[in-house]
Amino acid sequence: MNMSGGRERLVVIGGDAAGMSAASQARRLRGPDELEIVAFERGHFTSYSACGIPYWVGGDVGERDDLIARSPEEHRTRAIDLRMRTEVTEIDVAGKRVRARDVDSGAESWTSYDKLVIGTGARPIRPDMPGADAPGVHGVQTLDDGQALLDTLARTRGRRAVVVGAGYIGVEMAEALINRGYEVTVVNRGSEPMSTLDPDMGRLVHKAMEGLGITMVNDAAVTKVLTGQDGRVRAVATEDAEYPADVVILGIGVRPETGLARAAGLPVGGHGGLLTDLAMRVRGHEDIWAGGDCVEVLNLVSGQEQYIPLGTHANKHGQVIGTNVGGGYATFPGVVGTAVSKVCDLEIARTGLREKDALRVGLQFETVTIESTSRAGYYPGASPMTVKMLAERRTGRLLGVQIVGREGAGKRVDIAAVALTANMTAEQMTALDLGYAPPFSPVWDPVLVAARKAAAKVRAF
Amino acid sequence: MNMSGGRERLVVIGGDAAGMSAASQARRLRGPDELEIVAFERGHFTSYSACGIPYWVGGDVGERDDLIARSPEEHRTRAIDLRMRTEVTEIDVAGKRVRARDVDSGAESWTSYDKLVIGTGARPIRPDMPGADAPGVHGVQTLDDGQALLDTLARTRGRRAVVVGAGYIGVEMAEALINRGYEVTVVNRGSEPMSTLDPDMGRLVHKAMEGLGITMVNDAAVTKVLTGQDGRVRAVATEDAEYPADVVILGIGVRPETGLARAAGLPVGGHGGLLTDLAMRVRGHEDIWAGGDCVEVLNLVSGQEQYIPLGTHANKHGQVIGTNVGGGYATFPGVVGTAVSKVCDLEIARTGLREKDALRVGLQFETVTIESTSRAGYYPGASPMTVKMLAERRTGRLLGVQIVGREGAGKRVDIAAVALTANMTAEQMTALDLGYAPPFSPVWDPVLVAARKAAAKVRAF
Repeated sequence: MNMSGGRERLVVIGGDAAGMSAASQARRLRGPDELEIVAFERGHFTSYSACGIPYWVGGDVGERDDLIARSPEEHRTRAIDLRMRTEVTEIDVAGKRVRARDVDSGAESWTSYDKLVIGTGARPIRPDMPGADAPGVHGVQTLDDGQALLDTLARTRGRRAVVVGAGYIGVEMAEALINRGYEVTVVNRGSEPMSTLDPDMGRLVHKAMEGLGITMVNDAAVTKVLTGQDGRVRAVATEDAEYPADVVILGIGVRPETGLARAAGLPVGGHGGLLTDLAMRVRGHEDIWAGGDCVEVLNLVSGQEQYIPLGTHANKHGQVIGTNVGGGYATFPGVVGTAVSKVCDLEIARTGLREKDALRVGLQFETVTIESTSRAGYYPGASPMTVKMLAERRTGRLLGVQIVGREGAGKRVDIAAVALTANMTAEQMTALDLGYAPPFSPVWDPVLVAARKAAAKVRAF
Repeated sequence: MNMSGGRERLVVIGGDAAGMSAASQARRLRGPDELEIVAFERGHFTSYSACGIPYWVGGDVGERDDLIARSPEEHRTRAIDLRMRTEVTEIDVAGKRVRARDVDSGAESWTSYDKLVIGTGARPIRPDMPGADAPGVHGVQTLDDGQALLDTLARTRGRRAVVVGAGYIGVEMAEALINRGYEVTVVNRGSEPMSTLDPDMGRLVHKAMEGLGITMVNDAAVTKVLTGQDGRVRAVATEDAEYPADVVILGIGVRPETGLARAAGLPVGGHGGLLTDLAMRVRGHEDIWAGGDCVEVLNLVSGQEQYIPLGTHANKHGQVIGTNVGGGYATFPGVVGTAVSKVCDLEIARTGLREKDALRVGLQFETVTIESTSRAGYYPGASPMTVKMLAERRTGRLLGVQIVGREGAGKRVDIAAVALTANMTAEQMTALDLGYAPPFSPVWDPVLVAARKAAAKVRAF
């Protein structure tokens, strides 16, 4: 089981959150005399916050390097043999080795492993349409993407931006460009922005975005990007209209980057992500782990696998993998689907199942939507908040919560996230002993108000 | 069981949170043809937020009436026979009747009941020392207290205030008076302010209060209030020193107001509060309920009764009582001891057990204290936060969390409050799917950072 004298070799593919968290945690548990760690990263950076890119583009974060949690040099001082600009091109599962290519020189070589961690992340969805690669069209998945966009913004005279997609990246980029003084149009395929919310809650986001001066175009699929005589983007076209654009942001999501793993015959699920067990081991493979944006996760509420690329999960995966590889024991039990975001001062949060998620897995439910405030109504800064709650019919079990409001709204979703994890019912939630003082909450926290209503509705049916 | 023709009579003693919530909820479930409701209140106001008084005094809340959730007239329009300025002086349990006195006229009369709700609240602890009743010395428990204090502040030339006590009321009043431009000295019997925290966390509050220009005097018991020739307060004396004062605030807590109940032979616990069952029925009395600041509550973590006068509990008690009196079913399972407060921009929160609470009930534990930030470290406004966590030895069960920080710190305690209610271990908490985005949290929420450390420490011992 061991190829390098008295010690094992761990190979890590991918130098971002999952891979390098795994490497770092394994190193904490096992020193270089016990465990050799080799990590391959095809890009220029390690361990950075992709989630922070919109705030860097928008100017809230000053420097690119602020987003880098740990540089290649820092990893190397911890005895991790990190090979930058080196892309793994093949996994030989039977032979327990990977082939890697130096991106610059093209030189290839094989590296054997005792244990392998796959943290290949995600790749942005690029629409297959004319003009999608024209100058002025940008994704925002990597630091290189962010820098390219900032370069374009600095060079470009016009102030019209079109954002394609109205999910987290789309609304965050709308905010970033508003902050930079752009006229922003968001073109969205769905009926309302933030399709991770039910449409009635997405409608609140829609209204708030319009209030911020953002033009929302819903139910509109982009058919092509139009370019000018200089070859640069000049507009975005849908079936019905054209939207002039000096810069275009593609915020239509990502897919798991699993080409390498598929080619090696590793198991991939219905959403395209690698399938792991609770220890984050690739199913059926004793010595291969995977985590981060290239895996599917178990949704504890629906009981089904889901694809949720999110930095916080990637970090947890890495921690769990590193602990197990390092000889400890840890599991990643699954997620409840919590996410939080903002557009300027509008906070948007969700956890658990939407109506359509619940229906899809055979759950019947009651829904309630309530209005409350972030603080006691009489306290300065108390701002309105809408909370929607789904509870299972008969049992009253909490199924999901969505919140749209201003300051103090977003992180309240954590109350529901913990309650979901604990399988609480709405009725049980009504007795939760949450923090109360006038600057922090009404005497009934908005989440409790929703729980009371939901419990009553479950009783009535 | 029924004394007034075809309908029952509910008598409520006390017109604030618990009593009037109970009355309102009972009315929602049973109309006036089924249930007559008579409520007695000895003061001038109903259903107001005593917790809001410091913010009214400090000027954050403009008007006294902003703190009143529902006036006597509003209650009366809901067919509640509310008798203001009428004090209940005796409960005749055997005869199922109460004697009440009109405070102004002194006239007394008996009112019979089928069901009785006791919501007599709390009375402030007034130290038995010379000068405690001198003009310029104020409590802040009632709206009348608040108005009297504001009148004193308006009349008084000097700008030196001494606050006696450094619990919630004490620190909130220190903030209020700083906001009004006073020089504030807080005289505290304990070794650090906020004795609801462990002293190491109280120390952080101490430092922050000094940073705000508040003079903290710890380990000091006030022995007398000194008065000038005009009879007004001029200083507060301890054994060691004198602190000049133009106004003095007594913020040394409250005791359950249970004289009436004790005289009637109702059961009172070791902390002086009425003892109820899970339905908030007074133990051993089929037709008498009690809630709010006059009862003890079960602490679900320690397994013992505790006295925690807090508006949010009072409202829940009232809701439960009203539901049961109205023919429904509800329980108040207990509390986990959550509280949140602030001094200017310092947020202070706690839930569960302190070290000494845990020791007192025979629990052994590990503690960890971590530093993190409210947002991703690179995001503007990220501010430091200290989280202390107690987890049971061997089982790793969460026992308590204390948080001191700036914006975004306080309400994070809710994560721990729900986890305590669900009997989670620190290890289980490490996998919690909490809301993450750079403006809301680091990629590992501070509470998760603490949980990781606590879980590791439990494993190690």
